[in-house]
Amino acid sequence: MTERVHVPLEGREYDILIDNGLLARAGEEIASRLGQVRAAVVTDENVATHHLPALLDGLRAAGIEAASLTLPAGEKTKSFTYLQEVVDFALAQRLERRDALIALGGGVIGDLVGFAAGIARRGMPFIQVPTSLLAQVDSSVGGKTGINSAFGKNLVGVFHQPRLVLADTGVLDTLSPREFRAGYAEVVKYGLIDRPDFFRWLEENREDIFAGGSARAEAIAQSCRAKAEVVLRDEFERGDRALLNLGHTFGHALEGATAYDSTRLVHGEGVAIGMALAHRFSARLNQASPDDAVRVEAHLKAAGLPTRIQDIPGPLPDAETLMNFMLQDKKVEGGKLTFILTHGIGQSFIARDVPASEAQGFLRDMLEAR
Amino acid sequence: MTERVHVPLEGREYDILIDNGLLARAGEEIASRLGQVRAAVVTDENVATHHLPALLDGLRAAGIEAASLTLPAGEKTKSFTYLQEVVDFALAQRLERRDALIALGGGVIGDLVGFAAGIARRGMPFIQVPTSLLAQVDSSVGGKTGINSAFGKNLVGVFHQPRLVLADTGVLDTLSPREFRAGYAEVVKYGLIDRPDFFRWLEENREDIFAGGSARAEAIAQSCRAKAEVVLRDEFERGDRALLNLGHTFGHALEGATAYDSTRLVHGEGVAIGMALAHRFSARLNQASPDDAVRVEAHLKAAGLPTRIQDIPGPLPDAETLMNFMLQDKKVEGGKLTFILTHGIGQSFIARDVPASEAQGFLRDMLEAR
Repeated sequence: MTERVHVPLEGREYDILIDNGLLARAGEEIASRLGQVRAAVVTDENVATHHLPALLDGLRAAGIEAASLTLPAGEKTKSFTYLQEVVDFALAQRLERRDALIALGGGVIGDLVGFAAGIARRGMPFIQVPTSLLAQVDSSVGGKTGINSAFGKNLVGVFHQPRLVLADTGVLDTLSPREFRAGYAEVVKYGLIDRPDFFRWLEENREDIFAGGSARAEAIAQSCRAKAEVVLRDEFERGDRALLNLGHTFGHALEGATAYDSTRLVHGEGVAIGMALAHRFSARLNQASPDDAVRVEAHLKAAGLPTRIQDIPGPLPDAETLMNFMLQDKKVEGGKLTFILTHGIGQSFIARDVPASEAQGFLRDMLEAR
Repeated sequence: MTERVHVPLEGREYDILIDNGLLARAGEEIASRLGQVRAAVVTDENVATHHLPALLDGLRAAGIEAASLTLPAGEKTKSFTYLQEVVDFALAQRLERRDALIALGGGVIGDLVGFAAGIARRGMPFIQVPTSLLAQVDSSVGGKTGINSAFGKNLVGVFHQPRLVLADTGVLDTLSPREFRAGYAEVVKYGLIDRPDFFRWLEENREDIFAGGSARAEAIAQSCRAKAEVVLRDEFERGDRALLNLGHTFGHALEGATAYDSTRLVHGEGVAIGMALAHRFSARLNQASPDDAVRVEAHLKAAGLPTRIQDIPGPLPDAETLMNFMLQDKKVEGGKLTFILTHGIGQSFIARDVPASEAQGFLRDMLEAR
């Protein structure tokens, strides 16, 4: 059965569909919502091999002949150079304002193509076909698009909602175990933000989710629902949406300090360590019980995820270096450090004025602990 | 006295101020609306010479120390290359989401900097300080931003409203007479769209407007008011806003056919010829009286503007070439030609299915007329 999450943004509402075999139904699902439109697909080299033919067949089955553009895989593709390439591709295909640009891939492709769709002809429809667990539960939902800059990740982009998200759970079988685990960190995050029952359910169903049982689609749907609710409350990140950054302030700093070397640390792993640290830091600041930090770490560890800075292979940065990376983060406002802290599992909150000295002392102690 | 046009877009309302000497008051006007923000200015080489020091002084007077970036003048600056340069400049200045990017210049700088502000940190405040008549009455109002693409002009961009527009009428004294006339074509356009009384007022006050009398600021304010009303009805150009393209379908084709060679034709001149042609074409299609076309041409001619294709110096394109440029225009939807036609002065309307053969026959006759 197809799980459906409806995102009722006024005037720009859309569905997220979650099911095995959605690639084959892509044309039908698009045509029933957008009518007989023209379409073009952008993907990356890895995904093209596994899934592009199935998507093009699925489009053709509904009479949509789509051209495709295949870009290099990897974070470096989120650049002005490839942004221009995707925009030019859409214009060369003579897509008009009612046609659709389709992003087939993980977070990189989704962010890049969504941005291109947001600026080509000052905005054209786009459709997310996320192929990683991370993209299915996080980046494909909510309309944040963008590229990286020399000054930091995701610093350039637009808010542009997709017209449809097709999360085909079948494609997750081609992910490496490490990629799947990294995406799972973002699933756990929704429980930790404000859904203690979901966290408990994950503790009970983790093995079935990893084995590809029926809990997998449900976990994805619950994650999309959780994210959609936050986005509905605060589409443009003026308040609550910042809760989605739980684990990300520490996580981004760790990614930066390891130079985004994916052999050492991928985004979801950084988030896993970041979430564990956020719970420990909250306990240290007397905001939460240390027991919750222990429970969070136990769950992440059981899923095969890292939870301590020391879990990262290779030479580690010192506390000062990590602090500098945190200060560069875009969530710095008026010079003050914003953290997502917690009063316990499912009770996160935004703390806007955490003293830098507290954070640095905490990091020093974490690095010295063995 | 400062003329003030308020644009009451929900949640993003802003003022357009029109007065002599506004550069000197820029800091004060910004600080009273945005608070004590940081700011950075982007301008072009020509404008920098005449007006950048005055603007920086005006900012400093209110305690705003702004860095500035000076780009080459001309349409070629509306490119991905300079877009990235402006975004990087804003990020290098560590502007945050509440700070302001200031566009000091004509339409090129306004469109480019507005676009950069729309995507840096997924949107930051920007302020328009338009220095050409065209920019003061048209491009600085309404939130359309963008750059050109190999596939056409203004095909890439976002809708991003300014937080404040400062139209200093004093800076218009540095414009060449030809530039001033070109901007005046867009002033006339508002009368022709839906304000017959304003057109009559222009017929009576044209000389005072050109001489820099009190009618000048009033003409600018009325134009901004007219544009703001259209934008309020249809911010994202799904309907009525297309009326602002009166004269632009023919005009863009003429600009394309003369390869955007500004020694032969500048945008406002193309619009002047385009408006004259739109009135003649409407008469030919029995939509309007030929007398109105005569009256429009007489007024444009009196202002020193061209009104016929033959007024363009150098070799002229044939009707087929002009048609091909029109078909490339972004206002083609589903293959049909959209024109702004008129039932008479101040009675324009959108015609969505003008047969291409009619347009081509009209152009052939216009080119053969001597």
